Amino acid sequence: MQLCWIHPTPRTTELEALWQALATSMSAIVAPGNRLDFRFLENSGGFTRSLYAEHLNSVLMVEAAIQAQDEDYDGVLLGCWNDPLWEAREMLDIPVASVGEQSLLAALTMGHRFAVVTVAEKTAFAIERDIQAYGLSERAIRQPVRTIRPFSDTNLLKESLTHPESRFLPRFENVARQCIADGAEIILVGCAYYGPLLRRAGHYQITGTAVPIVDASAIAVKYLEAMTGVAQTTSLVKSYANAFAGVPSTAIEGGRDALSLR
Amino acid sequence: MQLCWIHPTPRTTELEALWQALATSMSAIVAPGNRLDFRFLENSGGFTRSLYAEHLNSVLMVEAAIQAQDEDYDGVLLGCWNDPLWEAREMLDIPVASVGEQSLLAALTMGHRFAVVTVAEKTAFAIERDIQAYGLSERAIRQPVRTIRPFSDTNLLKESLTHPESRFLPRFENVARQCIADGAEIILVGCAYYGPLLRRAGHYQITGTAVPIVDASAIAVKYLEAMTGVAQTTSLVKSYANAFAGVPSTAIEGGRDALSLR
Amino acid sequence: MQLCWIHPTPRTTELEALWQALATSMSAIVAPGNRLDFRFLENSGGFTRSLYAEHLNSVLMVEAAIQAQDEDYDGVLLGCWNDPLWEAREMLDIPVASVGEQSLLAALTMGHRFAVVTVAEKTAFAIERDIQAYGLSERAIRQPVRTIRPFSDTNLLKESLTHPESRFLPRFENVARQCIADGAEIILVGCAYYGPLLRRAGHYQITGTAVPIVDASAIAVKYLEAMTGVAQTTSLVKSYANAFAGVPSTAIEGGRDALSLR
Amino acid sequence: MQLCWIHPTPRTTELEALWQALATSMSAIVAPGNRLDFRFLENSGGFTRSLYAEHLNSVLMVEAAIQAQDEDYDGVLLGCWNDPLWEAREMLDIPVASVGEQSLLAALTMGHRFAVVTVAEKTAFAIERDIQAYGLSERAIRQPVRTIRPFSDTNLLKESLTHPESRFLPRFENVARQCIADGAEIILVGCAYYGPLLRRAGHYQITGTAVPIVDASAIAVKYLEAMTGVAQTTSLVKSYANAFAGVPSTAIEGGRDALSLR
Amino acid sequence: MQLCWIHPTPRTTELEALWQALATSMSAIVAPGNRLDFRFLENSGGFTRSLYAEHLNSVLMVEAAIQAQDEDYDGVLLGCWNDPLWEAREMLDIPVASVGEQSLLAALTMGHRFAVVTVAEKTAFAIERDIQAYGLSERAIRQPVRTIRPFSDTNLLKESLTHPESRFLPRFENVARQCIADGAEIILVGCAYYGPLLRRAGHYQITGTAVPIVDASAIAVKYLEAMTGVAQTTSLVKSYANAFAGVPSTAIEGGRDALSLR
Amino acid sequence: MQLCWIHPTPRTTELEALWQALATSMSAIVAPGNRLDFRFLENSGGFTRSLYAEHLNSVLMVEAAIQAQDEDYDGVLLGCWNDPLWEAREMLDIPVASVGEQSLLAALTMGHRFAVVTVAEKTAFAIERDIQAYGLSERAIRQPVRTIRPFSDTNLLKESLTHPESRFLPRFENVARQCIADGAEIILVGCAYYGPLLRRAGHYQITGTAVPIVDASAIAVKYLEAMTGVAQTTSLVKSYANAFAGVPSTAIEGGRDALSLR
Repeated sequence: MQLCWIHPTPRTTELEALWQALATSMSAIVAPGNRLDFRFLENSGGFTRSLYAEHLNSVLMVEAAIQAQDEDYDGVLLGCWNDPLWEAREMLDIPVASVGEQSLLAALTMGHRFAVVTVAEKTAFAIERDIQAYGLSERAIRQPVRTIRPFSDTNLLKESLTHPESRFLPRFENVARQCIADGAEIILVGCAYYGPLLRRAGHYQITGTAVPIVDASAIAVKYLEAMTGVAQTTSLVKSYANAFAGVPSTAIEGGRDALSLR
Repeated sequence: MQLCWIHPTPRTTELEALWQALATSMSAIVAPGNRLDFRFLENSGGFTRSLYAEHLNSVLMVEAAIQAQDEDYDGVLLGCWNDPLWEAREMLDIPVASVGEQSLLAALTMGHRFAVVTVAEKTAFAIERDIQAYGLSERAIRQPVRTIRPFSDTNLLKESLTHPESRFLPRFENVARQCIADGAEIILVGCAYYGPLLRRAGHYQITGTAVPIVDASAIAVKYLEAMTGVAQTTSLVKSYANAFAGVPSTAIEGGRDALSLR
Repeated sequence: MQLCWIHPTPRTTELEALWQALATSMSAIVAPGNRLDFRFLENSGGFTRSLYAEHLNSVLMVEAAIQAQDEDYDGVLLGCWNDPLWEAREMLDIPVASVGEQSLLAALTMGHRFAVVTVAEKTAFAIERDIQAYGLSERAIRQPVRTIRPFSDTNLLKESLTHPESRFLPRFENVARQCIADGAEIILVGCAYYGPLLRRAGHYQITGTAVPIVDASAIAVKYLEAMTGVAQTTSLVKSYANAFAGVPSTAIEGGRDALSLR
Repeated sequence: MQLCWIHPTPRTTELEALWQALATSMSAIVAPGNRLDFRFLENSGGFTRSLYAEHLNSVLMVEAAIQAQDEDYDGVLLGCWNDPLWEAREMLDIPVASVGEQSLLAALTMGHRFAVVTVAEKTAFAIERDIQAYGLSERAIRQPVRTIRPFSDTNLLKESLTHPESRFLPRFENVARQCIADGAEIILVGCAYYGPLLRRAGHYQITGTAVPIVDASAIAVKYLEAMTGVAQTTSLVKSYANAFAGVPSTAIEGGRDALSLR
Repeated sequence: MQLCWIHPTPRTTELEALWQALATSMSAIVAPGNRLDFRFLENSGGFTRSLYAEHLNSVLMVEAAIQAQDEDYDGVLLGCWNDPLWEAREMLDIPVASVGEQSLLAALTMGHRFAVVTVAEKTAFAIERDIQAYGLSERAIRQPVRTIRPFSDTNLLKESLTHPESRFLPRFENVARQCIADGAEIILVGCAYYGPLLRRAGHYQITGTAVPIVDASAIAVKYLEAMTGVAQTTSLVKSYANAFAGVPSTAIEGGRDALSLR
Repeated sequence: MQLCWIHPTPRTTELEALWQALATSMSAIVAPGNRLDFRFLENSGGFTRSLYAEHLNSVLMVEAAIQAQDEDYDGVLLGCWNDPLWEAREMLDIPVASVGEQSLLAALTMGHRFAVVTVAEKTAFAIERDIQAYGLSERAIRQPVRTIRPFSDTNLLKESLTHPESRFLPRFENVARQCIADGAEIILVGCAYYGPLLRRAGHYQITGTAVPIVDASAIAVKYLEAMTGVAQTTSLVKSYANAFAGVPSTAIEGGRDALSLR
């Protein structure tokens, strides 16, 4: 199967080492016979830290997902926790996975209560809104999404490519430890980038505990394989009833025109 | 105070009688000294019946709300149940009301359990998602948002300008009666247009019951006045903490550029 | 419109400065053309700090509300967080607002999670019971109602008329800061008196944060205007179905007689 | 132990046969060595079907409960589903049971989901409000409290003393069967009178099902024995923390005076 | 009535003083005319601290309960918080009480929010799972079951027979105080043994608070009396509908054979 | 990877055609390079329809899962909706999937609300208990697990191997249609056998609707591959904190001895 990971940003030169690290890390876990390609939103405004900025960027994410389906990919993955998951699912007839939903579902199989540690305040709100919309709050600790401080920035990200232990890990574990005190048995990394970076640096558990650090990106890839496998072997992708009914492309032409998307 | 109602569609000629009816009906309930203007999204793709189409149109709604603030309006109202409420609130420093949230809050003051009767399946999902996100499910009946059948279309809307009793009211009351049997004591009209039309035609209660039909549009206008009044007399609009922190306009320039919004 | 604020106590001489401060503060925010009068329960046992004492006092509150309607007021406001809101609504055919419900609803429009900081333990329980009954717990932080310590008393109240910064504000902000750490983005003042006092002294936010201090009394007045405006322009006050059906005055004569209320 | 059952009405002559039937039925189930006395509210306005009327009558219930404690009863039982349970518990230092709470708790031990079938609409709301306040909604079916139609009245009650099968049982079972279809495995009789009447007439299950009809009054008496037994053998009655802290009688003198209760 | 308490372990000689203390303590609170016998699982693997180990031991508990019914006991009590309550109820036609469920229900009558303090981590999970399954989470504090540290062991248990103040009480109160800070008004002892030991040593409240320490074992005995009293006077034990329908013994013969239980 | 499906019954000759059909159907969907073996509980009492009988059989399921791990399988699947999932996970260090949990999680990705249609009443209760324990009730319809009538038996199962349309499908669709009317957009087959039988007979949707019939068994196999893939590529199987901490085999020796399991 051919799978497509959609990055929410352009392929910036500054972070080229990150893009390659992610590609290497993710491709290594794909099952034999499957292929995972990476797409970037070259038109995107880049990293965003606002509900509305995410809303704008989500338009580009859905468009890229539709494009991937048109190019005959068998499944797509929205490569960021802030995502237009249900909008993309409405538009596509192939499986759509996300770093967020798939890792949250997997977390349910690994312990009683989970928490997500993310890297910026606005992202925390977006993820908590998703947890609530997905109906998963009962399995999360209270204040289920918490944020490292100071927030992440490009410098921290670049540094963490080689030395996550310098500044990122201490910030991350500081918050994670509070989550564990409040009942968390599983800590998901609330960022599609830091998860793989921690994992390849060998950080599998919060230091001094038996609580795993979950690389949500890796989980998402493996679960997308399962979803695509279900589709290929049983024809089942989604319900077409009610809100998830398919939409003829003509129904969205006006909206696309208004945003110069055609 | 100067208030701005934002219509989610262009001012189509075909529905000119509707636009005038709404303007007349809504302006009549504004408190003395206040003014309510109406704006249309002339660039919009028009009526939409899809999650993604709404997502696209919501971009235009937020842009129009920002524009209204720039023009010194004191408060804005998103004139449709499908709305980008929290995204708009993040971006603005004046009160933002919506037909949905304000009427749902008002319903809590009028009885124990409410239901919303709307006019298309996809809209039903969008409204239910909001009820859940707003944390109001406990006060709603099960399956709190239900849909008339057949769905609404332009013809039904035009007919209902003069004869809502012909086809719309029977469809509406048929669903409403099932809601009442399931415990509803209040029925909100899940459409910004039919509510005023039913009210001006004198339909205040579901026939044969003591259950009111709530014109959500009228409620929204009066509550926007309260919200704007709070802002003007006490300086309080919203929290600026966490997700609701203000966003510098530069932070969304990239996203706007990508969608040709500047 | 003529609105009536019902104080839960007699107009005690000792607190005359408070009564005047409240009247001045609240009247200043009423919309042009509206009038807000204040009534006291001259027969009341005064400040109460017990569930049962509140139950007794609530009888007087409902009687005063009925009296206000008989005197042709257009809307009434129960001027204390401990209130017989649904009992009053059952008995009246005009809008009934409360400091509690209206400010809680308004809080939902201002941020994701709220907390209430109140001034005595028994009041905290009463407010939490209301939050639960109103179905709003999902939007509150855990332990959503917390109490300053030491509790408020008449001396603290009198001092706060002129110097809220001396003792009240530090106690209040101490608790509020714990609420913020637990996720609150909005702090409601859980007392009808301290809210206006803080506001007129210019305390709009918890020091050092972007979290607003909500004067619940002011909110309640403005929302009562909206509710009364809805009633006057659309005839809609409440559902008359089920529990909220109107009650003929004869049905409560026996109970009133038993408590010498006639 | 000496237990006191408090009736919410005067001992009306018209229903003397009912009072005797209840006394006989309830006394028969008291454990050897225990005594159950019955008190009436001779001052009460009688049967009530309104939230506010119940609020008024509840004052008399609490007063009677305090009086029973003063007369050295070991435990009291509020003999009606509409009750001021927590207010009474706040004021007393002996166990306070109610027909409602105790039978609801017992129902949890008898099956997965319960329903209450009551005899008037306003009572249904009051009971549902209690189920919610007690935190027991998860174990109830949706719309957990339903009402026979037509509602009960004195004639139906008198007839049911000898012939519950004539009109009461068919109405009751009609509603109960709908509850069973919606998942109920236990049906509580939402009235302190009809439960004993059905039981002594031998109606233990909804006809044609394995679903028991629970005489809530009988349950309440036996559970009051347990609560009083716990108090007598372990000294444990209630928490004295927070809302349940004891109240000095002086704290309620003012409220009592206002209602001529002293 | 003849009641049977089933211990989850063999009657080990090492803890003979405990068995006698429990027997003395529990028998002293039984109502006049009732008898409480104690049974041990002589075949049991003993104290267990694992979900699966509890699952295995629960088989023996159910078998012992069935045996007690065959010997004409009128009611049985599962003498440990980890219990197969619903499985036992399915198999028996007499009341089955447990230390856990009965004390949790009683706690609801004693205050607003409870917590359970238990003695080992795996037990904490088992109890929290029960609180959730019983639908009682709303009345519990967050993280409603917490654990003393270090965990209990045989030495601590033996020491606490005579000197609970030495090591057990400080550990217990340390956790309980955190629960109280998080809103608990009632602390249940999450162990069938330490509750009676604390009570007979005169520890009725968390030191320095008004929060009671609930001996769950004593509660369970008194509530079993009520349940059995209900059964004897009204014939009501449980619903026989759906999941709680009775099971012919033949239906479990195969399973018993597989585990050499016959 | 080598995966092991554990059947909850012996390989009865009478159903040999079923066992072969399942093996063929499930093996066909395994990804290239993976192998799925089937194990039967030859010692089991067979089909069970009781909570306690399931509890007994669950012992054998856990033992078989441990045995599979000892034989170096990489992942195991509990091949029935009634399962000891968390007990098995506690004992094993390889991924444990179940027909129930995995298909429920997958359903969350396919629509807004799901329902499960199962084949016997006691199974319905067991599944509903799991949905609640897994914290997934919010995404299910009310009464989320419903049962065909008459219940399934061996004859129906055998007939459905060749002619599911004769009697099974009509019963199944009858219940499913009620679920859809109550809001279900996805119908899971609440039986590990009928799901594959319906699928291989080409029944992918409830007739006349856009609602898919989910073969929970197929889903479980594909998701087990994902879980095992995560384990093999990232070393992550489960949290080892709290309840999910590993258990030394010595800790369960006593319990095993008591049930002759060694």
